[in-house]
Amino acid sequence: MRPPAPPPDLPDLAAIRAAHARIHSLVACTPVLNTPALDAILGAEVHVKCENLQRVGAFKARGACNAVQSLDAAAARRGVATHSSGNHGAALAYAAQQRGIVAHVVMPENAARIKVANVEGFGGQVHFCAPTVTAREQACAAVLTATGATLVHPYDDPAVIAGQGTAALELLEARPDLDVIVAPVGGGGLLSGTAIAAHGVKPDIIVLGAEPAWADDAARSLASGCVEPLAGTTTIADGLRSSISPRTLHAMRTHVAAIGLCSEAAIVAAMRLVWEKAKIVIEPSSAVVFAAMLEGTLAVAGRRVGVIVTGGNVDLDRLPWQD
Amino acid sequence: MRPPAPPPDLPDLAAIRAAHARIHSLVACTPVLNTPALDAILGAEVHVKCENLQRVGAFKARGACNAVQSLDAAAARRGVATHSSGNHGAALAYAAQQRGIVAHVVMPENAARIKVANVEGFGGQVHFCAPTVTAREQACAAVLTATGATLVHPYDDPAVIAGQGTAALELLEARPDLDVIVAPVGGGGLLSGTAIAAHGVKPDIIVLGAEPAWADDAARSLASGCVEPLAGTTTIADGLRSSISPRTLHAMRTHVAAIGLCSEAAIVAAMRLVWEKAKIVIEPSSAVVFAAMLEGTLAVAGRRVGVIVTGGNVDLDRLPWQD
Repeated sequence: MRPPAPPPDLPDLAAIRAAHARIHSLVACTPVLNTPALDAILGAEVHVKCENLQRVGAFKARGACNAVQSLDAAAARRGVATHSSGNHGAALAYAAQQRGIVAHVVMPENAARIKVANVEGFGGQVHFCAPTVTAREQACAAVLTATGATLVHPYDDPAVIAGQGTAALELLEARPDLDVIVAPVGGGGLLSGTAIAAHGVKPDIIVLGAEPAWADDAARSLASGCVEPLAGTTTIADGLRSSISPRTLHAMRTHVAAIGLCSEAAIVAAMRLVWEKAKIVIEPSSAVVFAAMLEGTLAVAGRRVGVIVTGGNVDLDRLPWQD
Repeated sequence: MRPPAPPPDLPDLAAIRAAHARIHSLVACTPVLNTPALDAILGAEVHVKCENLQRVGAFKARGACNAVQSLDAAAARRGVATHSSGNHGAALAYAAQQRGIVAHVVMPENAARIKVANVEGFGGQVHFCAPTVTAREQACAAVLTATGATLVHPYDDPAVIAGQGTAALELLEARPDLDVIVAPVGGGGLLSGTAIAAHGVKPDIIVLGAEPAWADDAARSLASGCVEPLAGTTTIADGLRSSISPRTLHAMRTHVAAIGLCSEAAIVAAMRLVWEKAKIVIEPSSAVVFAAMLEGTLAVAGRRVGVIVTGGNVDLDRLPWQD
């Protein structure tokens, strides 16, 4: 009989506070907004932590900055790398730029022009590869071998999780009276950091997640206790198409009371609703929390709810309610 | 020879501070945001006072609340009235609702459904009239006669101007280091209040205005020293289609260094730019300040600039860059 696996390495509240001290001059302390017209529709008092107003337009700047700032000088000189072409890729480029080191970002050759421009705009070095998982992993391995750069995973990394948790620290500083805190789940890095920070600061707060029904691996994994695979998904919430990891599942099993699901139609409706009522630009991945509230899969009626809005990077020429 | 006309009744800093004390529990202290990616394009350090995140989605809540809260009990009981169908109409309905009195809003029978719904959503009583200036004035006069309500003008009113000036007070509280403060000009109520507040708090700050070249009455009036009429305009900045008044011209002549003009194309480009970079929903009337910066008609290069973003009420199904 094999001994049980040791618990995965996860940050605690002290690590998240240390991350905050490390990154607070590099990221924005984003505002927390309440919109009565939105509360009336959602049936709860909702306080929105606006990470869409964060540097690079997403909370990912927090985790990337903490990972980069945590490197020792020798490792930092060799640079960092990732194969995320979304918000994490841009965030890592930003974080590296702030430290004056290079970020290598492997992207498929068919990546949207705007995503390439985002990474390059922060001085990131883009490496194109064929648009397959194998090609991507090979390209990334080749970059790591050639440069000695440190791979910074978008969520399966304690330093990244600690950085993401700093948004919840700030939210609870602004609104210590929250009953509930909710974040979307993709790979689970944000929800893990949020949960650890929130329960560290306020042990009786209820921590909830939200994800698209089309990418319900976190809900299924929480139910079964094992990492359940995520089959290919085409959810419009493209930031949430990742699978959770044993590490993030462990954090969720410890802290998360429930994960609410939502339909694709509700994501689009919720996104439009937030733009219209709260006057902020949020991306589909951020809208899932509001979508789950609209569909009644999060038990928050009448509660004081903190919501982490994850980002605002959308194509303004193609809005989903206009398709 | 006639004696010179007395100077028009305008609030001073004390009146604006009193307005702030009167309304601060009824309006949001909106955040002040800075977006480095936007600064890089605009060539200045821009601090945005987000009145698009204000109650009713526009700064107009401030002036309307101050006017309504300033009424004595007997006048308040008879209600308030206006014939503005835009943000001021909704703001007056909101202000009246907060005091528990009625707001009568005269609107053309062809007004957009969303505007009618906005007013009614705050409990305002809508009175429809034929879509002509004469019919509107007759309808408004009839309402005033029948009800004894107090007319609250959208800008030509010292209490309204004092209320609008409270946004600048908050902006300078958050950023006392501003070199310049800029607001759009329609009727001039916001710019008047902003200018009086800003020079009251910080006498050496430079106060600028911005308006569409297609509605350049404020710039022409400032040049000639007389109220120059505004011919019918179809500028996309529909909140700025009003003519200034002798009262607001007096405030501008005293305080405003220059008014920058901008093209219609620049308004659309600037609106899209702010949505994309700052992740906030702003309406065309708010975009004129950024448009004038893009076109170089405001001398702010390298300065620390406060900008009052006036509102975020737009039709999300019809965005101007998609036409």
